[in-house]
Amino acid sequence: MRLSRYFLPVLKENPAEAQIVSHRYMLRAGMIKQQAAGIYSWLPMGFKVLKRIEQIVHEEQIRAGHIPLLMPTLQPADLWRESGRYDDYGAEMLRIKDRHERDMLYGPTNEEMITDIFRSHVNSYKDLPLTLYHIQWKFRDEVRPRFGVMRGREFLMKDGYNFDLTKEDALHAYNRHMVSYLRTYERMGLTAIPMRAASGPIGGDNTHEFLVLASTGESEVFYDDRVTALKLGDREVDFDNRAEVLGICEEFTSLYARTDETHDEAAFNAVPEAHRKVGRGIEVGQIFYFGTKYSEPMGATVVTADGNRVPVEMGSHGIGVSRLLGAIIEASHDDKGIIWPEGVTPFHCGIVNLKQGDSATDAACEGLYKAIKSRGLDPLYDDRDERAGAKFATMDLIGLPWRITVGPRGLASGVVELTSRRTGESEEMSAEAAVDRIAQIYAGI
Amino acid sequence: MRLSRYFLPVLKENPAEAQIVSHRYMLRAGMIKQQAAGIYSWLPMGFKVLKRIEQIVHEEQIRAGHIPLLMPTLQPADLWRESGRYDDYGAEMLRIKDRHERDMLYGPTNEEMITDIFRSHVNSYKDLPLTLYHIQWKFRDEVRPRFGVMRGREFLMKDGYNFDLTKEDALHAYNRHMVSYLRTYERMGLTAIPMRAASGPIGGDNTHEFLVLASTGESEVFYDDRVTALKLGDREVDFDNRAEVLGICEEFTSLYARTDETHDEAAFNAVPEAHRKVGRGIEVGQIFYFGTKYSEPMGATVVTADGNRVPVEMGSHGIGVSRLLGAIIEASHDDKGIIWPEGVTPFHCGIVNLKQGDSATDAACEGLYKAIKSRGLDPLYDDRDERAGAKFATMDLIGLPWRITVGPRGLASGVVELTSRRTGESEEMSAEAAVDRIAQIYAGI
Repeated sequence: MRLSRYFLPVLKENPAEAQIVSHRYMLRAGMIKQQAAGIYSWLPMGFKVLKRIEQIVHEEQIRAGHIPLLMPTLQPADLWRESGRYDDYGAEMLRIKDRHERDMLYGPTNEEMITDIFRSHVNSYKDLPLTLYHIQWKFRDEVRPRFGVMRGREFLMKDGYNFDLTKEDALHAYNRHMVSYLRTYERMGLTAIPMRAASGPIGGDNTHEFLVLASTGESEVFYDDRVTALKLGDREVDFDNRAEVLGICEEFTSLYARTDETHDEAAFNAVPEAHRKVGRGIEVGQIFYFGTKYSEPMGATVVTADGNRVPVEMGSHGIGVSRLLGAIIEASHDDKGIIWPEGVTPFHCGIVNLKQGDSATDAACEGLYKAIKSRGLDPLYDDRDERAGAKFATMDLIGLPWRITVGPRGLASGVVELTSRRTGESEEMSAEAAVDRIAQIYAGI
Repeated sequence: MRLSRYFLPVLKENPAEAQIVSHRYMLRAGMIKQQAAGIYSWLPMGFKVLKRIEQIVHEEQIRAGHIPLLMPTLQPADLWRESGRYDDYGAEMLRIKDRHERDMLYGPTNEEMITDIFRSHVNSYKDLPLTLYHIQWKFRDEVRPRFGVMRGREFLMKDGYNFDLTKEDALHAYNRHMVSYLRTYERMGLTAIPMRAASGPIGGDNTHEFLVLASTGESEVFYDDRVTALKLGDREVDFDNRAEVLGICEEFTSLYARTDETHDEAAFNAVPEAHRKVGRGIEVGQIFYFGTKYSEPMGATVVTADGNRVPVEMGSHGIGVSRLLGAIIEASHDDKGIIWPEGVTPFHCGIVNLKQGDSATDAACEGLYKAIKSRGLDPLYDDRDERAGAKFATMDLIGLPWRITVGPRGLASGVVELTSRRTGESEEMSAEAAVDRIAQIYAGI
């Protein structure tokens, strides 16, 4: 993309309403615009990152054998009356009447609707196991929406639901989700630690939250800091292999890591003092096993091999997709702006032309731009007629992980400059070598 | 995907509520489930086609130089009070009050919000031209939702908005949209004819609808049947070249083609009688030029080169993304089921194992399945323990354009059978040749 033809409305001033760094930088980098309290437009660059995150979530869910579908944003109230949650849910549920005065709501979650889909179509244990998920906009009418996309009212969430014959099968589905989430967050450059959680309005005893450590996190967290060194990496996982999946879950949950809600002081004190840490965390996902809490009242049953009819064992599993943009920025920024991890960056690299209008630098930049695109990558070429300082400031603010700087002096000796946003280190090399390096960096991502 | 692990709840009976073939087949093929009047869940196979259509729309918009973003589903009423449409829009607008009793609405379209984004961030003619678009769920509270996704209440739409300095620039944007839409529909296997239209509640004089001919269409159409032979094909289009883009628009709009709303009997009678046709059509898109209708009341202005401040010239341009699934099926089916065009098919081909459990046929099917996947394609392997007749009926109903049938008799002589869903013609060939043929069919798509 050529910046002169893009829509990237960066702000010079710090917006007064933004209290945390991710909100401030998302506004300043022209990623979002508030349309009402807690309701945002995703401007082009914000939308690109959102789609990238959504894509990673899809890929990892499909890898785990889960099946995507899409439920609507609006739901009939009657479904929620069946589960008993219509009255319980409180003022966070946005209740709506349509023109025929029928009670509707803007879905804050989808346990009822997915259970309805299941009971309408599945009748036999032979069709199990089954895990269905979607990535859809939700609405929760927070009293005080704040922190930008971190606590919005209209937000994008992945929510998945497993249907199994037995509790053991359902716990395997739970474990499968935990492992798929570990890889999902790692691909986004995040260290998200699974911590035992309290269940809240979804219900259920087995539940873990995934927390990203950040000083602005809403939860206090207590942990053995060796947990932050664990990596799933590129391991091939056979998601049908229960022992293997369970083994990974044990690896990632045996070191102490709890939020204040489930904190156990005695257990924490057993952690060697050098590793005992207290910090804050941002919740970016949660998994639940809740058995027959919805299948029983809503009549989602299957016929077993011996002809009995039993309610299915279920769980639900969520990732806060839009909130992840905030979490990633909270975890990866400096005082100049965002530092995107390669896995989610909106553009793979920036190209800065130090002397726009000079035929040699223009030609070199055009050549680089086309060469990088021909490798299947997406560069952002700052072709505006602006001072070098302004171009650098924009690149630093929007946080592309790699920048190629092209100026007349370098070109005279046949080099361009490749700079890492994260380390600030620069290296001179030929334009061809810079293209190769960028292609190599993204080869495994 | 192995069918035994997929969620494809096909129905044997014709659903009583479905009056038109696309609605009937989408229900029978397990693509959608109604959750409330005019509100659907997109079951896995329906979701796959929806995503494929969305992807084609994105690719063709980006090719034309238009920039994607995403506006929220809910909007504050105040924006619509500025344009005067809050009171005008009528009962189709779903009006909502949040917990603080603020007036909101579920967006039926986005002229106001995009104009608000523009005026908040753009100030100079130098930032023009600019075309922003999104693909987002909309809500229109139809009195009698019907025909499945063809006239739903919650529906997915692409809506794009151009911002230009002069009327000439805005008309070029209009033409650019017409050309990008022609390619969009062609890639979906559709012949969608641009017809001059009446403007309705969006406003503006220059407007064309795109209609797909189908006997179940809601509009009566009058046309010179030579218009259906026009093809954009693979032409390279330079979207910055006004004469070239205008030339294509003239090519596609000079033959008579009108809906009943703008029909001109005298002009129609000038069409040679052999080419004069009356039929019905499904509207799948519409483009509008409306000048300063929104920019003036909402203060969306730019400073010109000579220092004056002028309201921008605008237009809006929509494609009914979810409705397209219905339109494609109306245009492409037979009495056994859907016939997907290659460009939008949910799976590239089906594999039917005639003797599940037989080690030779099982091994041959596994080999085919992996070989097709290794070409980057997505086959659906019917590995259920079912009769051949039931497997064929399912494949015909769900409409994958190509089927490979594997049975013990063919394998004995080293062949499988490749069948075209459209023509019903079968050809015997080696498994390797079948894989090559499938890869070749999809190479240019």
